[in-house]
Amino acid sequence: MPRARRIGEFELIARYFAPLARGFPGAGGLLSDNAFLPADKRRDLAVKTDTVVAGVHFLADERPDWVAAKALRVCLSDLAAGGAKPFAYQLSLALPKSWSERWVAAFARGLAADQRQYGIVLSGGDTVVTPGPLTVTITAFGHVLAGRGLTRAGARAGDRLWVTGTIGDGALGLLAARKRLREPSLERRYRLPQPRTALGHKLIGIASATADVSDGLLADVGHIADASKLAVLIERERVPLSAAARRVLADKPTLWANVLGGGDDYELVIAVPPLWQPALLAAAQAAKVKVTLIGGFSRGRGVELTVGGKTMRAPRKGYVHF
Amino acid sequence: MPRARRIGEFELIARYFAPLARGFPGAGGLLSDNAFLPADKRRDLAVKTDTVVAGVHFLADERPDWVAAKALRVCLSDLAAGGAKPFAYQLSLALPKSWSERWVAAFARGLAADQRQYGIVLSGGDTVVTPGPLTVTITAFGHVLAGRGLTRAGARAGDRLWVTGTIGDGALGLLAARKRLREPSLERRYRLPQPRTALGHKLIGIASATADVSDGLLADVGHIADASKLAVLIERERVPLSAAARRVLADKPTLWANVLGGGDDYELVIAVPPLWQPALLAAAQAAKVKVTLIGGFSRGRGVELTVGGKTMRAPRKGYVHF
Repeated sequence: MPRARRIGEFELIARYFAPLARGFPGAGGLLSDNAFLPADKRRDLAVKTDTVVAGVHFLADERPDWVAAKALRVCLSDLAAGGAKPFAYQLSLALPKSWSERWVAAFARGLAADQRQYGIVLSGGDTVVTPGPLTVTITAFGHVLAGRGLTRAGARAGDRLWVTGTIGDGALGLLAARKRLREPSLERRYRLPQPRTALGHKLIGIASATADVSDGLLADVGHIADASKLAVLIERERVPLSAAARRVLADKPTLWANVLGGGDDYELVIAVPPLWQPALLAAAQAAKVKVTLIGGFSRGRGVELTVGGKTMRAPRKGYVHF
Repeated sequence: MPRARRIGEFELIARYFAPLARGFPGAGGLLSDNAFLPADKRRDLAVKTDTVVAGVHFLADERPDWVAAKALRVCLSDLAAGGAKPFAYQLSLALPKSWSERWVAAFARGLAADQRQYGIVLSGGDTVVTPGPLTVTITAFGHVLAGRGLTRAGARAGDRLWVTGTIGDGALGLLAARKRLREPSLERRYRLPQPRTALGHKLIGIASATADVSDGLLADVGHIADASKLAVLIERERVPLSAAARRVLADKPTLWANVLGGGDDYELVIAVPPLWQPALLAAAQAAKVKVTLIGGFSRGRGVELTVGGKTMRAPRKGYVHF
């Protein structure tokens, strides 16, 4: 998937869009997943916008209710990384010319199911017809303690690096969806992300920095390291894998590149000071989310990976959107 | 432009999306242009999402800075209709595969110019590449007095109908842009809307209902009448026209259909109780916006149009998005 094409997304944002967010502290220089708008004395409004395009971010013939779920959940994952509790969303739906009412009905059922599951409600939006592919843009809103929204910046040397759930299932699931692997559980994981909404808002006061794994573990941990101006070391042996991913890797170890670099996991990576480790474990238990220690932050720059006792500079390229 | 295609946008929203907004009072059943989210005791957050697609909502080869302006301004126009003062926006940019850095740079310059003009700032967003046409989704945020945001509902029998600026320039401007009319001033008006941001927030306490003219005068006034459960009468002779529109209509009176039904004017239509007429005129003068009385609301349903002393049922079809 990675294609180098002119400048990348991060560079494009840094060069042309970050200057437009200057003077708005809650935008965080567009370096984090969420924007934080002041609401009242107690709470800020966390805001996340994500666009998914048929054939690019999901299978062109994906089930309409799963398209709805994917579009919503990639945003909910970011809100969770920000420590926010979601409550509403705006929907922009650009339907291809061939749209059918049956498709829209199933798409709306998918939204309704996720509204119940995550306690959110549609607040507004827009519907248009496009000569291009189906395109869904969600802007999701969450509440977060005023001034306490979590970002990629804030990790300190000595903080440990934790990750929720298992890593690599998203990228391996894409291969399964494309029939290049036979692992239905992984395919489902790619097609239907499970955002860590139950844990995210409990990380306030525990995490020093967070991100969700959408671009790939190495890339997203690298974003935390960069934003926090630190180096980070990941021990590959500690990276939590599903049974299916372990089977796949035993058969084809070269797919480690996909596991660490492939994205679409929608797990959280969390920087936590050692002192708060018991609090993290208690929060994870309360949220019924598994967390695993996979590395730590130190002075310096860049991402290093330990494999079989040997430490190497990690390739930084995750999923490249462009 | 109007094409009947399966069910229309309004029906689609009513049937499939309005039920998803139930239980969220600020969504207003998706009947109005804006959503209102509670912020603090003093203010609500007005939110508006709009998507524009190249070749559908703007010329496929439009200047990039004007694409930026159009995408932003159609949202600002809705916020103005809601009585809100804009302050920030989320940007989703789906770039066609052929995108160039030069195009993005010019697009960003267009955003920067409008940020200065309207006092807004970029808060966040997403950038993707699409195999389809350039697609821009803006979610704009404004502040409005708590509980006082203006909607299409709320007009009462006896209220008068006012409109800002001039009507018809948008639709005639589209014909000019397509080289079917030679009126450069109209073409510019279509390509570069001028939202009534200066007036909108002054209408709180004066207007009983508002809308912006995006679908067409008859359609948008009809939306107010429907949402307010009233009939409305418009006197065609009173509808304010630009000098260019008058020239065009003198030459081709059949183009009245475009003037009244064509949309893209981004003027405000405002229901005002007679008692508040002096306040409206003072607010308009302070905002340096011309307002014109064009009709009034009464008990009943539907839109009537008086032409040359003869009253007729007005065709309701405005610009049909689908």
